[in-house]
Amino acid sequence: MRTRFSLQLLALIVTLVQCKSNCGYQSCHPIKDGYINVHLIPHSHDDVGWVKTVDQFYYGTNNFDYRASVQTIYDNVLKAVQKNKQRRFIYVESAFFWKWWQEQNESERNQLQQLVNSGQIEFAGGGWSMNDEAVVNYQSVIDQMSWGLKKLNDSFGDCGRPKAGWQIDPFGHSNEMASIFAGLGYDGVILGRIDYEDKSIRLENRSMEMVWRGSRSLGRQTDIFTTTLYNHYDAPAGFCFDILCEDSNLVDDPYSPEYNIDVKAEEFISEHIKDSIKSFQTNNVIVPMGRDFAYQEAETWFRNIDKLIKYINNHETFEGKKYNLLYSTPSCYIAAVQKQSKGILTSPLKLDDFFPYATDPHAYWTGYYTSRPTLKRYERLGNNFLQVCKQLFALAHLPSEFEPRLDSLREAMGVMQHHDAITGTEKETVAYDYARLLHIGINDCENVTSEALSYFTNIEANDFNTCLLTNISQCALTETHDKFVVTVYNPLSRLVSKYVRLPVNGNSFSITGPDGNNVHSQILPTPIGIMNIPSGRQTSASLELIFEAQDIPPLGFKSFYVQKKNGDDVTREDLSLDFSYFNGKGVGFTIDPSTGLVDSLEMNNVLLELEQKFWFYNGSDSFMDFSSKPSGAYVFRPDTLSPIKKVSDTAAFEVYRGDLVTEVRQTFSEYVSQTVRIYANEKFVEFDWVIGPIKTEMNWPSNGKEVISRFTTSLNSESTFYTDSNGRELMKRQRNQRPSWNVTVLENESSNYYPVTSKILIRDEEANLEFAVLTDRAEGGSSLADGEIELMLLRSCVTDDQFGVNEALMEVAYDLPIVARGSHYVTLGNIESEPTIASIENEIATQKLLDSWIFLSVPTETTFADYEKAHPMQFSGLKKSLPQNVHIMTLEPWTKSSYLLRLEHVFEIEQDSTLSEPVTVDLKQDLFTSFELKSIRETTLGANQWLKDNKRLNFKSAFQSDEEDLSKTKRSNALNNEFSVELKPMEIRTFIVEVVSKL
Amino acid sequence: MRTRFSLQLLALIVTLVQCKSNCGYQSCHPIKDGYINVHLIPHSHDDVGWVKTVDQFYYGTNNFDYRASVQTIYDNVLKAVQKNKQRRFIYVESAFFWKWWQEQNESERNQLQQLVNSGQIEFAGGGWSMNDEAVVNYQSVIDQMSWGLKKLNDSFGDCGRPKAGWQIDPFGHSNEMASIFAGLGYDGVILGRIDYEDKSIRLENRSMEMVWRGSRSLGRQTDIFTTTLYNHYDAPAGFCFDILCEDSNLVDDPYSPEYNIDVKAEEFISEHIKDSIKSFQTNNVIVPMGRDFAYQEAETWFRNIDKLIKYINNHETFEGKKYNLLYSTPSCYIAAVQKQSKGILTSPLKLDDFFPYATDPHAYWTGYYTSRPTLKRYERLGNNFLQVCKQLFALAHLPSEFEPRLDSLREAMGVMQHHDAITGTEKETVAYDYARLLHIGINDCENVTSEALSYFTNIEANDFNTCLLTNISQCALTETHDKFVVTVYNPLSRLVSKYVRLPVNGNSFSITGPDGNNVHSQILPTPIGIMNIPSGRQTSASLELIFEAQDIPPLGFKSFYVQKKNGDDVTREDLSLDFSYFNGKGVGFTIDPSTGLVDSLEMNNVLLELEQKFWFYNGSDSFMDFSSKPSGAYVFRPDTLSPIKKVSDTAAFEVYRGDLVTEVRQTFSEYVSQTVRIYANEKFVEFDWVIGPIKTEMNWPSNGKEVISRFTTSLNSESTFYTDSNGRELMKRQRNQRPSWNVTVLENESSNYYPVTSKILIRDEEANLEFAVLTDRAEGGSSLADGEIELMLLRSCVTDDQFGVNEALMEVAYDLPIVARGSHYVTLGNIESEPTIASIENEIATQKLLDSWIFLSVPTETTFADYEKAHPMQFSGLKKSLPQNVHIMTLEPWTKSSYLLRLEHVFEIEQDSTLSEPVTVDLKQDLFTSFELKSIRETTLGANQWLKDNKRLNFKSAFQSDEEDLSKTKRSNALNNEFSVELKPMEIRTFIVEVVSKL
Repeated sequence: MRTRFSLQLLALIVTLVQCKSNCGYQSCHPIKDGYINVHLIPHSHDDVGWVKTVDQFYYGTNNFDYRASVQTIYDNVLKAVQKNKQRRFIYVESAFFWKWWQEQNESERNQLQQLVNSGQIEFAGGGWSMNDEAVVNYQSVIDQMSWGLKKLNDSFGDCGRPKAGWQIDPFGHSNEMASIFAGLGYDGVILGRIDYEDKSIRLENRSMEMVWRGSRSLGRQTDIFTTTLYNHYDAPAGFCFDILCEDSNLVDDPYSPEYNIDVKAEEFISEHIKDSIKSFQTNNVIVPMGRDFAYQEAETWFRNIDKLIKYINNHETFEGKKYNLLYSTPSCYIAAVQKQSKGILTSPLKLDDFFPYATDPHAYWTGYYTSRPTLKRYERLGNNFLQVCKQLFALAHLPSEFEPRLDSLREAMGVMQHHDAITGTEKETVAYDYARLLHIGINDCENVTSEALSYFTNIEANDFNTCLLTNISQCALTETHDKFVVTVYNPLSRLVSKYVRLPVNGNSFSITGPDGNNVHSQILPTPIGIMNIPSGRQTSASLELIFEAQDIPPLGFKSFYVQKKNGDDVTREDLSLDFSYFNGKGVGFTIDPSTGLVDSLEMNNVLLELEQKFWFYNGSDSFMDFSSKPSGAYVFRPDTLSPIKKVSDTAAFEVYRGDLVTEVRQTFSEYVSQTVRIYANEKFVEFDWVIGPIKTEMNWPSNGKEVISRFTTSLNSESTFYTDSNGRELMKRQRNQRPSWNVTVLENESSNYYPVTSKILIRDEEANLEFAVLTDRAEGGSSLADGEIELMLLRSCVTDDQFGVNEALMEVAYDLPIVARGSHYVTLGNIESEPTIASIENEIATQKLLDSWIFLSVPTETTFADYEKAHPMQFSGLKKSLPQNVHIMTLEPWTKSSYLLRLEHVFEIEQDSTLSEPVTVDLKQDLFTSFELKSIRETTLGANQWLKDNKRLNFKSAFQSDEEDLSKTKRSNALNNEFSVELKPMEIRTFIVEVVSKL
Repeated sequence: MRTRFSLQLLALIVTLVQCKSNCGYQSCHPIKDGYINVHLIPHSHDDVGWVKTVDQFYYGTNNFDYRASVQTIYDNVLKAVQKNKQRRFIYVESAFFWKWWQEQNESERNQLQQLVNSGQIEFAGGGWSMNDEAVVNYQSVIDQMSWGLKKLNDSFGDCGRPKAGWQIDPFGHSNEMASIFAGLGYDGVILGRIDYEDKSIRLENRSMEMVWRGSRSLGRQTDIFTTTLYNHYDAPAGFCFDILCEDSNLVDDPYSPEYNIDVKAEEFISEHIKDSIKSFQTNNVIVPMGRDFAYQEAETWFRNIDKLIKYINNHETFEGKKYNLLYSTPSCYIAAVQKQSKGILTSPLKLDDFFPYATDPHAYWTGYYTSRPTLKRYERLGNNFLQVCKQLFALAHLPSEFEPRLDSLREAMGVMQHHDAITGTEKETVAYDYARLLHIGINDCENVTSEALSYFTNIEANDFNTCLLTNISQCALTETHDKFVVTVYNPLSRLVSKYVRLPVNGNSFSITGPDGNNVHSQILPTPIGIMNIPSGRQTSASLELIFEAQDIPPLGFKSFYVQKKNGDDVTREDLSLDFSYFNGKGVGFTIDPSTGLVDSLEMNNVLLELEQKFWFYNGSDSFMDFSSKPSGAYVFRPDTLSPIKKVSDTAAFEVYRGDLVTEVRQTFSEYVSQTVRIYANEKFVEFDWVIGPIKTEMNWPSNGKEVISRFTTSLNSESTFYTDSNGRELMKRQRNQRPSWNVTVLENESSNYYPVTSKILIRDEEANLEFAVLTDRAEGGSSLADGEIELMLLRSCVTDDQFGVNEALMEVAYDLPIVARGSHYVTLGNIESEPTIASIENEIATQKLLDSWIFLSVPTETTFADYEKAHPMQFSGLKKSLPQNVHIMTLEPWTKSSYLLRLEHVFEIEQDSTLSEPVTVDLKQDLFTSFELKSIRETTLGANQWLKDNKRLNFKSAFQSDEEDLSKTKRSNALNNEFSVELKPMEIRTFIVEVVSKL
């Protein structure tokens, strides 16, 4: 007995020792005063898809294309890091971590837990992927960060929480991302790529490190320490020890003829460290020891780094200077800088963003703002549906067995945010795989939404359908049934109306709403452009049924009973000589009959003359010398001699007038058509463009074609335009200028392109006019002349741009060049007005981002009356609409008994005299119909730490005024079981709420 | 107290558990009846130098040339094998193992010890390198095997002892090697490369496995089970999971689009296993899972193999057959075959060897028998000196502090035996590195010999010099001193005489032997050919001093005091019209004055007309199609249209007659010269050839030049000739025939080439004549017509032969094509005679292999008398000479208090009526002067196991007669403290002897 007890006790002691956590800053190797401290950061940059698919990279298949296997990296790093307690490593992409973790047994998991607890392995970044920053929407970034952090939190607790951003590969950096990192409670962020000219100046001015302010509205609480790697994220040349490099290993056996440690150590210091230290704020320099898919040979890397550290640290000085090499991590580096600088940086506070990104005077990475526009749109649909799915899951209080199906879309969307996914900078087969993943995620989540709707409507879950191909006017259910039910779910926190448009095979339909009243409808022929689609469209439908689903409740739905009937309500072509088109609310446009082009717009009591037509840039195909960079997936670069051509000066057109919708359908060329459209109750003119197929045979071997839509007005925009930052705050852009330095412009077009995630606008301050174009996905855009706005829609390049994809961006679907369709929502108004034009744009943007989602079902009942008796036809998740400036950004199941809830103020400061004010929401009183909040605790933005526990390292610029109104820019105090939430402009607050179902 | 005791007890238990060894056959995974048992053998084939140097491969430098690091393999295998107890791995090359082992700390060593103890890691082969079998001498092979095995034994004890040979890459296999493996006590040997035609027949006849008899003389005790890999030693195509391959990893996640385990498992069985099983003896098939430098990514390999095993073993049948995949090792495979076959194989007993090796009808790997002839010679010198060094170490009873310097040469020689070292099939820079290693080894061992000689001679150790460049007539000491002492050490076990030849700068010398008598000398101009050497020769000497050091004692030395004197003893050119040249003992030759060629030889009372001249093969440079293989480092292939050309039909010549030596110096061309030489007391005519520089500019871009010496006689040799097997038994060769199958000959020359390690001969049975050429290194040789013998001397190829070296064999020294010099010792006699011609050849061969070694020193005394008083001038290590048929093959320090002693019978059966009889040596009585034997224990050939403990698995061929005289072929009983050793013909017996110094 006695022996047995002793053994058990021993086992317990062993367990306790193993589980003692020592992570955090106390686990950092100490820095030394009087030394140059060289922070070596072992890391592996593992793209979540790029030239291979996610699974190909993970499992290491298709190695002929690229010799990489991420599971191998994780396997080998685990063993290698254990071998020596000094060693450190950072894990970055949680998508890969999680895939690997799922496959490990207890033993490997315990080993990793120990390494995480001891700080030997640190998570940096920690999102599901290392997201892009140009073409992503903030909601999806926050979602993907939160999902990655949740997995780390669930697996490792506190020690698994990242403390630093690690955005080393994205091609430019956004203010919104800085703001998000600050919101996540991170102490800093490491960047890898900034504009070559910006960088050279920063190197010169010792300003590679700075305090960067994410949000103009939120001020200091969005400040984040930012450092830029001296030389990209690869290990210094000659110090890459992996299967993808050929550098010699370090040899310190003095008897070997291969002995090289002396020469290599000299080289390391003199070529890579000595000069770089001058550009940084303290005697600390950060040196990434890795590269793409590094550490497949983990032990080899570490063995070499061990030797380098040992040799250099045992060597008194190099050229009179003392060096202390240490294994480090991004957070340990940041803490070291903070310690040595006492948090005061001598570089200016940065307020602008890092767009556009150029690697040389002729290579502006502005092509990817548009590359693969259909994938970019599909991703936005994915976000739209993910929010719908999360909300319905929570509202219906579904059991946890449905979570894997929700996770499927969460994870697909996490992958989509990756900087080689949504960006379009991947191989074509990989783009297909992303679409496949998203498709599976949406399919899986349809199980969730069906189940939830089934609960609320009493329709069999299996009976629900969504029709994602309505963009090519294809939907088997509506085309083949004489009766169907349209259930429209509204994910916004206020009432909205939605024009439903579905392909049908009948000339007349009766539609009955939840109140039993008939709903007016209109039938139109399918738009011209869609017909271009070669064989993708598999339908016989040539008509579309349109009706307005009015006043859908917040987080709720309405059902509409649709029945084919005799008659002919088809809207025929209008052959009248009246070329002006207005709805009853003063929104409209005119066409110049001689050209077929729009020649004016009118809305909000403003009339503006305007021309809109299509052009294409001749993408350069030259890559023979340094100054001749080709256009490709990353880079947009027009041909030097003949940069741009018109598609056509005129358009043939057809007109369909109706009381719900009026459409002018223009045909510009074989591959460009457009529908200009106004709805009875919408506050914009819609330009519904269809581009493609761009037949590359036609122009091969000459240049590529990169098609733009350009709006030309007489506004005196004074070289200035505005684009949004990831769907949130507006960034001021000035042609041929950068806020932080005097830019050298050798590329007139591409250097002035910026990412337009949701909006681009120009202003004529004198005329008090604002003209804005809202998009349905990210596009590259600019204003290359005063009064102009242009947006790039579809790119077909003839060569690769030599940045790694190794494939020309020439999208193909069904064996022909792809066809893309999308919408520009154009608004116009006085800058100063009531309501402000900004608030109108905001409303449209929010509604387009989180559009009402259409579910279809076929009723088994033969009459509306029977149907109505059996099936509830409307539901509201909220007791009442929230104010226009606040929004339930996130509602989703989080733990067994809790939901994640995020509230968001959707206005910036100074956008609107009322709406830009702080707003208070009483969660207890106002909110949910299907559950009750039992408790609420505020967390950081990523929901992986109680907000009150989050203490960020303090940094400020020496140039920063001390008189800032701190009350305005200070983070709100963390809420704890207070249900009244105040939101300042642009603020997002995150809560974990314990709920009890009321269903 | 109590607790502390418990913990200590626990620690002890843990230690015991860790140290429990479970290696050997009981650790093999079980095979299953009714299944096809697929033995997967994870292995890494790590060349000890090839396209990179040994250290480059080990450390992983010069990765641009070849991406390999052996330390990485060892690091990663250790971790990966630990991860799963099922996994197995074999270590092969002890040179690499030892280098790695030296760098490990206790923790890694313990981990490996545990894996070795559990049988998870097995050593196969186990020699210092995987030695070549064609061009190596048996002594060096035994040495290098023993040295490797000693390191394993010292590190791991019994569990570190290999049980199987693993000769998977050498380019053909010798009977001597089979004999050695049997002597080492191995249970079998695995081969990777056998002739393509032989293999196809064996595949057809189910005879890939066989019992192979190493020695005709020793019979059944040299039988060894031999298996040939189905498809080389690489993992099956598509199943290589490493940094040097691009195969996809196996994916068994059914949700991944990359899922491939089903298809890959089918492919594995149907393409690689299903058919192969038909060619093997039992339901066991051996599948190597590795390749060159595999397991740099060890975990990846194992992970994939784990999955393959799991999937296939869980799959009931494939095409109706059941498969059992298992991790295995060579020894486990052999044991499985033995178990299932009960040791009786249905294939015939193999008696011949596996030379030559061809990979296709036009690619005979017979070039490497000659490639890099100077390196091949240097290696033989290395062996000669290593034996001298070991003996002197033991005789002088040097303290252990000198061992590292002996080890240096032991290890260099171990490396040299590697199948890409001595073979010449390495890159030029690697060949230089081998020479460097050997140079260092020899230098280090000179410290040992100097120390030993210092003890015996009372000369300061520092004062000893060796002059290795006397082959180019260069020796600073003898050229620049008027007085010097020549100490000649004899490593043989009998008295020998040695003609000493040294470059000098004087016309007359007096030489005084140990007995005070004057020794006759002769002075000759430096031979012509040596003068060809462009800038390598750095000396002004143009004369050579020759004298005979007579009757050097066995394992002993004599010193000669040499002093320059006035006079002129230089032998001048002989311009007489007598063209016959004889010594006083009837050994001589004649020259045809009209051609300058030798036209007859005479010795042993036989006169033979003969022509000897030089030819060169036009090495093919074609590699455009399958049937057009080029000549290169491995392959010898003459041009199809014009295979061979004469260098010249005539030779200019000079004659130098003398009473010690007579020389005819022939010049055939700019790059071919030769000295034909007879010594007063030697029983052969020496043909001292000098070839080079072969100026490749002259023939580029046409064919290469591969120079041969051809002897043409009228002997009716009936298509038959004989070559030695690694310097021991003679192998009968028949032109255009193979003993085991009907060969298809499409390459008349190269398919008839065989390795000549030391001897080639032809016989005219009717005329009772034997004509033999002995070499001073390995050369390729043949008899392409009756009465002819040819030997290939130097090769210059214009292209690579596409087998991996990736460099044309075009040796350069001092910026010009290399010059090679060497000797053929030609004998002639009646087959039946007394003494037999065989015994004469034997005597010459032994003396040339273990030549007396010349040490030089400069006396500080001014007269011989003074010198003689201060310094003993002779010493014998043996009390008396051993009989002519027995030889102390090895005498070397082994453990702290013991020596390793090997005795060898140097005659085959039926070679000589007396000398081919068994012989008995009484070690106690006869032997050593400087130490006494206290005990003696017999071991296996490798000295890593007591012979009595060695039980080999029993195999025999079903065709094997049961009536074999077992008494003749049975291994002798192990000796244990019996000092009288009987040796049968060709027998080698190995002992560890405890000794006490008598010094």
